[in-house]
Amino acid sequence: MSKTNAGRFFEDYSVGQVIRHAVPRTVAEGERALYHALYPARHALYSSDAFAIACGLDSSPLDDLIAFHTVFGKTVPDISLNALANLGYAEGRWLAPVWPGDTLRAVSEVIGLKQNSNGKSGVVWVRTSGLNQVDEPVLDYVRWVMVRKRDADAPAPETVKPDLAEAVPADALVVPEGLDFGAYDFGLAGEPHRWGDYQIGEKIDHVDGVTIEEAEHMLATRLWQNTAKVHFDATNRDDGKRLIYGGHIISMARALSFNGLANAQMIVALNGGTHANPCFAGDTVRAWSEVLDKAETGAPGVGAIRLRLVATKGDSGAFPLKGQDGRYVPEVLLDLDYWALMPL
Amino acid sequence: MSKTNAGRFFEDYSVGQVIRHAVPRTVAEGERALYHALYPARHALYSSDAFAIACGLDSSPLDDLIAFHTVFGKTVPDISLNALANLGYAEGRWLAPVWPGDTLRAVSEVIGLKQNSNGKSGVVWVRTSGLNQVDEPVLDYVRWVMVRKRDADAPAPETVKPDLAEAVPADALVVPEGLDFGAYDFGLAGEPHRWGDYQIGEKIDHVDGVTIEEAEHMLATRLWQNTAKVHFDATNRDDGKRLIYGGHIISMARALSFNGLANAQMIVALNGGTHANPCFAGDTVRAWSEVLDKAETGAPGVGAIRLRLVATKGDSGAFPLKGQDGRYVPEVLLDLDYWALMPL
Amino acid sequence: MSKTNAGRFFEDYSVGQVIRHAVPRTVAEGERALYHALYPARHALYSSDAFAIACGLDSSPLDDLIAFHTVFGKTVPDISLNALANLGYAEGRWLAPVWPGDTLRAVSEVIGLKQNSNGKSGVVWVRTSGLNQVDEPVLDYVRWVMVRKRDADAPAPETVKPDLAEAVPADALVVPEGLDFGAYDFGLAGEPHRWGDYQIGEKIDHVDGVTIEEAEHMLATRLWQNTAKVHFDATNRDDGKRLIYGGHIISMARALSFNGLANAQMIVALNGGTHANPCFAGDTVRAWSEVLDKAETGAPGVGAIRLRLVATKGDSGAFPLKGQDGRYVPEVLLDLDYWALMPL
Repeated sequence: MSKTNAGRFFEDYSVGQVIRHAVPRTVAEGERALYHALYPARHALYSSDAFAIACGLDSSPLDDLIAFHTVFGKTVPDISLNALANLGYAEGRWLAPVWPGDTLRAVSEVIGLKQNSNGKSGVVWVRTSGLNQVDEPVLDYVRWVMVRKRDADAPAPETVKPDLAEAVPADALVVPEGLDFGAYDFGLAGEPHRWGDYQIGEKIDHVDGVTIEEAEHMLATRLWQNTAKVHFDATNRDDGKRLIYGGHIISMARALSFNGLANAQMIVALNGGTHANPCFAGDTVRAWSEVLDKAETGAPGVGAIRLRLVATKGDSGAFPLKGQDGRYVPEVLLDLDYWALMPL
Repeated sequence: MSKTNAGRFFEDYSVGQVIRHAVPRTVAEGERALYHALYPARHALYSSDAFAIACGLDSSPLDDLIAFHTVFGKTVPDISLNALANLGYAEGRWLAPVWPGDTLRAVSEVIGLKQNSNGKSGVVWVRTSGLNQVDEPVLDYVRWVMVRKRDADAPAPETVKPDLAEAVPADALVVPEGLDFGAYDFGLAGEPHRWGDYQIGEKIDHVDGVTIEEAEHMLATRLWQNTAKVHFDATNRDDGKRLIYGGHIISMARALSFNGLANAQMIVALNGGTHANPCFAGDTVRAWSEVLDKAETGAPGVGAIRLRLVATKGDSGAFPLKGQDGRYVPEVLLDLDYWALMPL
Repeated sequence: MSKTNAGRFFEDYSVGQVIRHAVPRTVAEGERALYHALYPARHALYSSDAFAIACGLDSSPLDDLIAFHTVFGKTVPDISLNALANLGYAEGRWLAPVWPGDTLRAVSEVIGLKQNSNGKSGVVWVRTSGLNQVDEPVLDYVRWVMVRKRDADAPAPETVKPDLAEAVPADALVVPEGLDFGAYDFGLAGEPHRWGDYQIGEKIDHVDGVTIEEAEHMLATRLWQNTAKVHFDATNRDDGKRLIYGGHIISMARALSFNGLANAQMIVALNGGTHANPCFAGDTVRAWSEVLDKAETGAPGVGAIRLRLVATKGDSGAFPLKGQDGRYVPEVLLDLDYWALMPL
């Protein structure tokens, strides 16, 4: 019997099944430095201990997306090794900051199953929790993927489609303990725009573009111990390109969004997200955002802003999204919906 | 009104203006490791805590050029986003070591302005200070850049050309507190040549070459949070290449200079520098040095050596520099003039 | 006289000569993060402080191959700058874990010399020790290289061929102090296979492939301060490619071997190794392993397993190795023989 992991197939999942993912990971200052080398990340709270301390924290936590990618990476060998597509995210919440030196692990519960009509694959919904070394949850989200069946003749499971919130309600957002934007230094943060300056419906073109190289996205994807072959093995495709991990585009777009959203400091919820089209090395990524909603939080000086973040490999100035047929236009890479915390 | 930063234009500067740059940055062991991955850096004082302790320091500081690039990167959004050229450096001094965990920020004062005769651009001189988390200055330098005007019809400012020293005088060099080369271990440092072995006028070919890849210079430039578009966006040019950040060449040449100058441990002053020609991925960088001056310092066993460091994308053995017309030959990338500390 | 290091030639070595290598290096969390970015490394003991603590250690040590590459890199300027080939390894033992913050240096003794019959080169055997900042040995190994003569007319030294063990005997393996696999968590480690599940002679195809980019292997090789020109300078060859450091392939293959050998946690001995064919950017590396031997150790729950690790740029499923002529087939890159520790 082979000792290697062939990954799970659709018929290996059952609703209620709990999967404890392997290989816990300690993340520290090295991961922080690499994050700054891989993405043009400049949000001050994650760049400077001094700035984070002035905002009431003990020091600068690791970027919220380091937490996300690390937890996500843990799930790949169990959830998406045989995935045909990463279909969506919902109900994601960051529950506690991740500090340098913390060790993260992940656990997922299967919460939904639906075989496709072609009988060859199906959709699996999982709720994944990221836990630190004292078993405190740091992150919780639902994602669903399309997974191949091992055997097309295997019987279809009973369809269970989870009832997912369209967005995390504002009153369910978790503000990190101690966070206080009362003495927020807009000068050091890089932009003067506060929560009150953003209007629902407002769109922001983040202007800058970054051309991606093979070495960069592979360094990033490995850093999160994401093992999906398609990202690393050029012999998978005739053109020798590797499919870029969708999370690389999330981080790139979020970092680019600094230019116009420098004060959207912390991500606290992931309402949804679609990897609309594949991205390959050589593509130049740009981003634009739209303000979807705003809410107050109980924390001093802290507002919440709900943002759509769109990454495109074309021009971002025309705010590309969907065509008249309701489908994403070919240059759109990512359509992400998240809540961030911003000074009032 | 757009929320993104369009950068300052020539008419936005006035002499005496003080610009407090955004996004302080904590630099630590991750940045140190990346520096060693990005450049063939081997100076022992920055490689080994044990070696630094034997030289009287508490531990190994971060490379002097990490301090420089981090501070420089802070200034880009305010000084050089619309720059047509980075024209020169002067009066640069390292004032205190940067230790892992320190947080750096930057402040610049405009000290000179001169509109170009074409009326479309002008030269801006700034003196930039890098400060740590307790507001102690760690670095101070002047640079001047050519900046576009927003409006060609805007009136020219009064010309103020600062009076800059041709070189930092030896008695103004700051030797880090506690530095003592009395028990310097030349064997561990890698070369036997001491301060007394170098002659003014002596030239050293550093022999080795490094071919640069797009991924590497972008990782480096992002690490210093330098946001200038030309380094990252391949759609800026027809050939898809990105202009390499001049500081990447400074670090590459300095690291290559280990071979022949292994004991020129610490950079303490930047007397001047010219990015003579652009560098692109695929170029192979080599370096040579010339001893310009020597001086004693009051510190035990510590001498100062003034060096010209030239980077070239051609052969370094012939010490290429300028043609008979007084202009840099096309293969020369960098002509840097600095003071370093070396054991007597 | 030139101040640069031209490297040693064959006639510069004599049996009994001790070479203290330059540039000690402090390795820490930054190197750990980079290791995870450069290789798909997932062995839990090196990924998670919490996992390492549960195995009786104080925290997660740095990967055994970080220790190896760092020590190896120190020796390059003295041993292999003028090497024509890196011929082999023997009698390698890891003697103590390397912890973040440790400073490594290296010392080599020449233990063998044999001039080649062509009179133009010879073989040099050295035993290299890696020492930490309190002069405790962390690693010890023999390697031999073919080195050019400076002067073909120089007399041949007396031939001394060291008597090397075919493999490190099991009772000479050093188990790190405190290591205890009694409460080993196979779920977190990623695979259920324990020492007893592996049979001598068993072969494992590690399945996954990684395509290598120029930027990646140069980042890695520089990180270990390995200065051999062939890895960095594209002008050395007509095709502009750079010869990839053999150690990069060792780390890549070892990381790929997680898939099937996730519980072969710690490398404790290097019995031998051959870099069978050169590797270049663009090659896709795969790996397979063969169980060569098994032994018990005195440590609680800790078994030792002797493994052949083969890296190939072709398909790994057919376990390629040597042809009928006894020579490595062209796609084989590496044939390594090592001992690892695994839970009983």
